[in-house]
Amino acid sequence: MSRPYRIALIPGDGIGKEVAPEGLRAVRRAAERFGLALEFTEIEWASCDYYRQHGTMMPDDWKEQLGGMDAIFFGAVGWPATVPDNVSLWGSLLKFRREFDQYVNLRPVRLFDGVPCPLAGRKPGDLDYLIVRENTEGEYTNLGGTMFAGTEREIVIQESVFSRHGTDRVLKFAFELAASRARRHLTVATKSNGVAISMPWWDSRADEMAKAYPQVAVDKQHIDILTARFVLQPQRFDVVVASNLFGDILSDLGPATAGTIGLAPSANLNPERRFPSLFEPVHGSAPDIYGRNIANPIAMIWSGALMLDFLTGGEGAGRAAHDAIVRAIETVLREGPRTPDLGGSASTTELGEAVAALI
Amino acid sequence: MSRPYRIALIPGDGIGKEVAPEGLRAVRRAAERFGLALEFTEIEWASCDYYRQHGTMMPDDWKEQLGGMDAIFFGAVGWPATVPDNVSLWGSLLKFRREFDQYVNLRPVRLFDGVPCPLAGRKPGDLDYLIVRENTEGEYTNLGGTMFAGTEREIVIQESVFSRHGTDRVLKFAFELAASRARRHLTVATKSNGVAISMPWWDSRADEMAKAYPQVAVDKQHIDILTARFVLQPQRFDVVVASNLFGDILSDLGPATAGTIGLAPSANLNPERRFPSLFEPVHGSAPDIYGRNIANPIAMIWSGALMLDFLTGGEGAGRAAHDAIVRAIETVLREGPRTPDLGGSASTTELGEAVAALI
Ligand SMILES: CC(C)[C@H](C(=O)O)[C@@H](O)C(=O)O
Ligand SMILES: CC(C)[C@H](C(=O)O)[C@@H](O)C(=O)O
Repeated sequence: MSRPYRIALIPGDGIGKEVAPEGLRAVRRAAERFGLALEFTEIEWASCDYYRQHGTMMPDDWKEQLGGMDAIFFGAVGWPATVPDNVSLWGSLLKFRREFDQYVNLRPVRLFDGVPCPLAGRKPGDLDYLIVRENTEGEYTNLGGTMFAGTEREIVIQESVFSRHGTDRVLKFAFELAASRARRHLTVATKSNGVAISMPWWDSRADEMAKAYPQVAVDKQHIDILTARFVLQPQRFDVVVASNLFGDILSDLGPATAGTIGLAPSANLNPERRFPSLFEPVHGSAPDIYGRNIANPIAMIWSGALMLDFLTGGEGAGRAAHDAIVRAIETVLREGPRTPDLGGSASTTELGEAVAALI
Repeated sequence: MSRPYRIALIPGDGIGKEVAPEGLRAVRRAAERFGLALEFTEIEWASCDYYRQHGTMMPDDWKEQLGGMDAIFFGAVGWPATVPDNVSLWGSLLKFRREFDQYVNLRPVRLFDGVPCPLAGRKPGDLDYLIVRENTEGEYTNLGGTMFAGTEREIVIQESVFSRHGTDRVLKFAFELAASRARRHLTVATKSNGVAISMPWWDSRADEMAKAYPQVAVDKQHIDILTARFVLQPQRFDVVVASNLFGDILSDLGPATAGTIGLAPSANLNPERRFPSLFEPVHGSAPDIYGRNIANPIAMIWSGALMLDFLTGGEGAGRAAHDAIVRAIETVLREGPRTPDLGGSASTTELGEAVAALI
């Protein structure tokens, strides 16, 4: 028998600590049912609690501790009241994405039956697309600096960095994904008419990649009008590929148009499996609702489903476990129980139990 | 009697050429009625037609020709089939914004009675806010470059430039505007948790400016969740201030949530009046519908109203003319006629005539 998949469970901060156990419950249940061997290690660092005690978000040997894992199952990080976001996030989540080369951030957007849609007249099936976000470079850098600091003449330069290596591989992933789907449609987010160095170049890389995928219909759109179309024409989308910043924006906006970002999962993938991939809800640590056990755990649970699917290469028991979890989510969303964000009064735990019972 | 206001009318490209005459018609009608003296100069450059004949978007003396004007009333520019956007836009519109130091781009978002709203259950009054976009610097630069061009190791650097001068003045404009309104609420768009040099600094400038406006409630939001809230909680917004790129995105998304970007006007202001300000619809040249006289001219007409208001300093005849135009727009949107974008079959001209007749 093959060795169990090794998974680090990192609850993190705020509601991350509330939804993580429910994610674990669902994943364990599905693994049991479909005969997947999983081994969990719970980790209490990569959290602001840890930072307050140790003055750092993670121990020095974090990379050794996590490097042998197959996946990281992550709650949420951030507690801005005591630790600035740029400390907590750059010291954990963004470090994982970058140092474990999780260059694809895959974020499904889907309207479920039973979830009220903020868009008028839309029904399940009208919103069902995948966002592929570049996840390691681009606009997310701390390169640049300030000249004449503290004076009237102060000037700040912020650099974005796009590599051909980093751009081509995420474009390739997106084209492959689009080519594997029924509609074979890929939207490429850009802003080449305003951001005048990186984005025209990004466009040219997309044009180049498109040559290898004649079967994929490519639709290049500026980010401004693209956000408008997420609202006005959501049926238009199948796979959307975007730079780090544009992908960040689209993957909050998309889930919002499908009802709430509280349901949205996210897979931070190192497709080559040289490093562990990371699975996390898109919602953050939500300090405003933490401590009341009312957070909706579905994004965490759905992220767990993406994890099982990825671990097994989208085949066999992992795919079956994924599908069973998603079906359980569909049922609970349609029939309840519901947490307060969806108009009910169930607790995080009750929702997690309800999903697990259906797997 | 004081001299007439001098206005350059630049139709530009595509539907710019169709909506400009209707903007002119409405503005002339309102000026007549409220006794404002206007003098128009029609300009056929700053268009791709001109580029095709002259190999440049504008004549060498464009600045002299326009510098003495009080305002530029602008249709749209861009014809990507023959002239790349970065040539046409950087050679005209973005040049005006920058060289005429139109550092405030003011873009109202409003849901009108009679316009179907893509957001479920929203009524006029639920969406009514102003976006203040920095319009000269920030992410819109052609600074940076490529290393190892054409090789596997290719790396592209794109620089954003934020100056204290440029940031403080647009923040100040936004705080003043918020302070002058009933709700006194200002949303500051940021992304300081990801874009790690410029955005934390932008936040600190906003914090500093906020000290001078204790009466204004400030709500800082990351651009990702902010786009989500434009959809989920539009009543939340009063004045929104954002960098060039974030303002660009929000000012397409906001109008989309209010029905269509086809209605959205925009004022590119040099508040000190050292240079002409520019008034233009947010929609572009729309090559796909050009030539059929079906474009909705309301964004152009509304931009004309903003122009009259600005020219007279928001007082007297200019304010009255503005209000009369906006009332005429309200009536036409409620009662028709309608252009095809709003489900009718009226032409651009018919709509323009209907609005003018009501002024
Ligand atoms: C918390 C923040 C740094 C992060 C990001 O911008 O990537 C988050 O918004 C996300 O989308 O995962
Ligand atoms: C056409 C383009 C360069 C322009 C911009 O990005 O500023 C447009 O989108 C706008 O919002 O006026």
